[in-house]
Amino acid sequence: MLTSRATSAPLFSSVLPPWLVQYRRDTLPRDVVAGVVVTILVIPQSLAYALLAGLPPQAGLVASIFPVIAYAFLGSSMVQAVGPVAITAIMTFSVLSPLAQAGSEAYIALAAGLALLCGLMTLSFGALRLGVLSQLLSRPVVSGFISGSAILIIISQLKFLAGVQVAGGNSWQSLLAVVTNAGQSNPATLFLGLLALVWLLWSRYRLVSWATDLGVSKGRAEVWGRVMPLVVLVVATTAVIAFDLDRAHHVAVVGEVQPGLGGVNFFVPGLDTLHQLFIPALIIAFIGTVQNITMGQALAAKRRERLDANRELIGLGAANVVAAFSSGMPVGGGVSRSAINMAAGAQTPMASVVSAITMLLVVLAGTHWFARLPLAVLAASIVVAAFSMIDVAAFRQAWNYDRADGYALLGTAAGVLFLGLERGIATGILLSLVTLLVRTSTPHIAVIGRIAGTEHFRNVERHGVETIPGALFLRIDESLFFGNLNALEGRLAAEIAKDPRMTDLVLIMSAVNRVDTTAMEVLVDVNRDFAARGIRLHLAEVKGPVQDRLQHSPLWGALSGKVHLSVNSAFECLAAEKIVETGLYVI
Amino acid sequence: MLTSRATSAPLFSSVLPPWLVQYRRDTLPRDVVAGVVVTILVIPQSLAYALLAGLPPQAGLVASIFPVIAYAFLGSSMVQAVGPVAITAIMTFSVLSPLAQAGSEAYIALAAGLALLCGLMTLSFGALRLGVLSQLLSRPVVSGFISGSAILIIISQLKFLAGVQVAGGNSWQSLLAVVTNAGQSNPATLFLGLLALVWLLWSRYRLVSWATDLGVSKGRAEVWGRVMPLVVLVVATTAVIAFDLDRAHHVAVVGEVQPGLGGVNFFVPGLDTLHQLFIPALIIAFIGTVQNITMGQALAAKRRERLDANRELIGLGAANVVAAFSSGMPVGGGVSRSAINMAAGAQTPMASVVSAITMLLVVLAGTHWFARLPLAVLAASIVVAAFSMIDVAAFRQAWNYDRADGYALLGTAAGVLFLGLERGIATGILLSLVTLLVRTSTPHIAVIGRIAGTEHFRNVERHGVETIPGALFLRIDESLFFGNLNALEGRLAAEIAKDPRMTDLVLIMSAVNRVDTTAMEVLVDVNRDFAARGIRLHLAEVKGPVQDRLQHSPLWGALSGKVHLSVNSAFECLAAEKIVETGLYVI
Repeated sequence: MLTSRATSAPLFSSVLPPWLVQYRRDTLPRDVVAGVVVTILVIPQSLAYALLAGLPPQAGLVASIFPVIAYAFLGSSMVQAVGPVAITAIMTFSVLSPLAQAGSEAYIALAAGLALLCGLMTLSFGALRLGVLSQLLSRPVVSGFISGSAILIIISQLKFLAGVQVAGGNSWQSLLAVVTNAGQSNPATLFLGLLALVWLLWSRYRLVSWATDLGVSKGRAEVWGRVMPLVVLVVATTAVIAFDLDRAHHVAVVGEVQPGLGGVNFFVPGLDTLHQLFIPALIIAFIGTVQNITMGQALAAKRRERLDANRELIGLGAANVVAAFSSGMPVGGGVSRSAINMAAGAQTPMASVVSAITMLLVVLAGTHWFARLPLAVLAASIVVAAFSMIDVAAFRQAWNYDRADGYALLGTAAGVLFLGLERGIATGILLSLVTLLVRTSTPHIAVIGRIAGTEHFRNVERHGVETIPGALFLRIDESLFFGNLNALEGRLAAEIAKDPRMTDLVLIMSAVNRVDTTAMEVLVDVNRDFAARGIRLHLAEVKGPVQDRLQHSPLWGALSGKVHLSVNSAFECLAAEKIVETGLYVI
Repeated sequence: MLTSRATSAPLFSSVLPPWLVQYRRDTLPRDVVAGVVVTILVIPQSLAYALLAGLPPQAGLVASIFPVIAYAFLGSSMVQAVGPVAITAIMTFSVLSPLAQAGSEAYIALAAGLALLCGLMTLSFGALRLGVLSQLLSRPVVSGFISGSAILIIISQLKFLAGVQVAGGNSWQSLLAVVTNAGQSNPATLFLGLLALVWLLWSRYRLVSWATDLGVSKGRAEVWGRVMPLVVLVVATTAVIAFDLDRAHHVAVVGEVQPGLGGVNFFVPGLDTLHQLFIPALIIAFIGTVQNITMGQALAAKRRERLDANRELIGLGAANVVAAFSSGMPVGGGVSRSAINMAAGAQTPMASVVSAITMLLVVLAGTHWFARLPLAVLAASIVVAAFSMIDVAAFRQAWNYDRADGYALLGTAAGVLFLGLERGIATGILLSLVTLLVRTSTPHIAVIGRIAGTEHFRNVERHGVETIPGALFLRIDESLFFGNLNALEGRLAAEIAKDPRMTDLVLIMSAVNRVDTTAMEVLVDVNRDFAARGIRLHLAEVKGPVQDRLQHSPLWGALSGKVHLSVNSAFECLAAEKIVETGLYVI
């Protein structure tokens, strides 16, 4: 018996997630309340993002059931909530709309294939511990990508908002069609849509300050703000029913939905489909990874927890695999979903489990509630959500702090808007890497001299210092690598041209953390060329790891000068051969 | 008269290149000899590379006339010789062979279009001063690209060497076809080809040491080595004529060639063709740029001259534009061509002008000399040239010096071999950038303490130093940017976990040259999180340019600790609040 218990305990805890093993009964009431609240509050966005993805609205509800449970058991964040999210939805639409008619059976099957591929890829990122991939993108580039996508999302919803029929085409063609056909818009739809839009914008940006001015507590005002999207939906649906807007005035509505989960409309995608979906799935998985880890870390920091990025990816991947077999809609970690979850008082993923069960009840019993929900109002809620994703403050900050990052942000956003989401993200990665290359391509190099009477060395341009005629001390403030050698060679040539009497050049390597193969070969060339002109090349303050490499390179043996431990010993050594000149003390 | 002379002199010197304006009559004899020698010695490779490019052999001769003159007048190198080169030739073949039958009229027209586009692009690189583009690639990546291409070149020549008929297809299909059809090879061709191959290999790698062992001077032995390819061609052609090998034994030969320059078979390419050729031309222009600048710099260094990279590109671009309108074969700066030029005693580009005129005479009068030259022998000379391009020493050096560079080299070579030349170079650029990212992704961070009685601070792991309990001094030895923040955050979390009593963290920024937007934002997050745990964040020794930026960032105002000018002042400041602990002196 003892043996059996001894083995069962670790088995039990390895199968169940730690939060469940350690679950304390007293947190249950709070988790249950949070779960139920979250379900009700995320219904509008679940329906809306399914619409954005080109899927039947109820797919968004089903995507808030099983994937949520999968993530609760496998993910690492205690409060992150997965489900339909805006970026994943617009990417799904952008990938699949050229391949099939949005909402058709073929389209739904493709979406399921996309979710499956994307899930398997995210799982393998996690299993291969590639969470570090998220470092390929700088924050300004991620921000540019999200802002650009948000603008695309807004454009995609204008036709629903205005009640204009628009044939397929890219975002700009669609925008043009809405503008040119604006005269044919359905007045009732336009009225409902604009009213909902203004109401939602007001409740997001003005309601809290308005209510607190009236003496309502801030916490209560924020609850009002969160409930308002649901109120808007209820009011709009009531208006449709009361005035028979859908039948009498042709206002587009969600339409009758089969109750229940529907058949599992998944089929194993063929090789051709896999081929078409591979790159898009990779991009969605990659963006999902970046967004999820970034947001997960922020949430974990708020709760003083630490996020396991790779475990997080396994949770997200599993959620997508499960999504493929149920709703067929790729899911992600949602910013507003998680915020609602935390605000509603969720303590552990138990809240997500409760939320999933509640949503299951809604889907089984209540889909007829949504049949006469006007699409224009869903579109208005998408536009408001997308509007809040356009991060002007991040742009202003990057632009003021570091112009290159500002350009990278703008470039990525422009790439998304004009080249599409896939090429936009490729542009972003390239811009991240190129800014890195450009930043390091012009190393800071200072000519230094000794402050008389000390062992301190300073820039000759800023301080009056001792120098040795014919001996130049150059401090290189950057690692040397293929991208900044042109600048180094140019600087050395310029310094030599300035002083024809030069006999010694000392490179001070105190800030050089790496010398790559190209740089080592260039130093070999420089040493040889200088030797031929009668100039000795010395090195000083070479760091341990750099010295370890250079000692086994052709440079070490060929060096015409010496390797000095400190700048001062190099200075003393050369000063012994020459006369020291003292400059004026500037500071 | 005075005015007229005063204006005519600068006009004269601005139209003519400086070397011609300053030309001294006494260097003319050496330039004339060099020019004539070069013409005779480059005939074999000119024919061979035209064959490699899929063009009629005489195109290689014509490409050694007019482009050479254009380069002599516009280029910057005194001794670089342009003409048909191996890499450009194989790239031409790889780009055009899917579009038209090699050697056909359509193919020749496409090659001319490629040369024109490539020339215009190189010209614009030069005009836009983009010589710096060559920094996108590290030397190991360039070396991997050249070695991979050399292997492709060898594979492409096997069918000529063995006298096997092979239908089109990529390199690997062609290799497979040669191997499986080896039984059907033409015995006379195979015999001639292998004999030429062995002879050429021997003269390149063994002849000099063999001759010097016999007492011949080294200089003379090297002349023998350079003349030998021509001897092999003459002997092979004589053998074909003597034994009637082409007619009696079906040995493939160059065939009758129209004397003269032929019509200018150039036509302005249509938009469709331009579209197809655009990316390949860009890649050839880019590789030409990289190779030309790298080689030009090496040659200039040998002669103690300085290369103007952008002027070099203008010369190379003009040469290609001229090539488009004459031979239709893209040209480049040739390694062996330039070596022959220097060895033959060329002093100025006048040697190239003489060489071009000599080649013109050969083409006008002597093309029938090449009619019965066996293709197998040309193929053998290509294989030997390509073999010498495979740079095993560069690989060994990169591998031993820096494993990441070794992998980048191998990856690029594999990319070229298995994905083709275009994707190979894309792989190379990506590998260059990713090695840069990976290298900087794990910054070296040291915990430091003060050497008692001094103001010197050292790594606590290597030295016995004074430390302050609860205060951690971390020296970051790398610029902070989006790619290395995960490592920084991980390290900070680990250090905090080690010491629960911690109250102060001092980041020593003496080696931090830049803090990008992402890094600044992460520092803001870290500062906030630490403050919430009661840990103050201090900065010390922030460099001027970094401080200039950070002062206008949200970090500066929010910082929970202080900014110290030196590590020592930070130490003194914190020591005043606490007790200093002295460690053991290890060194």
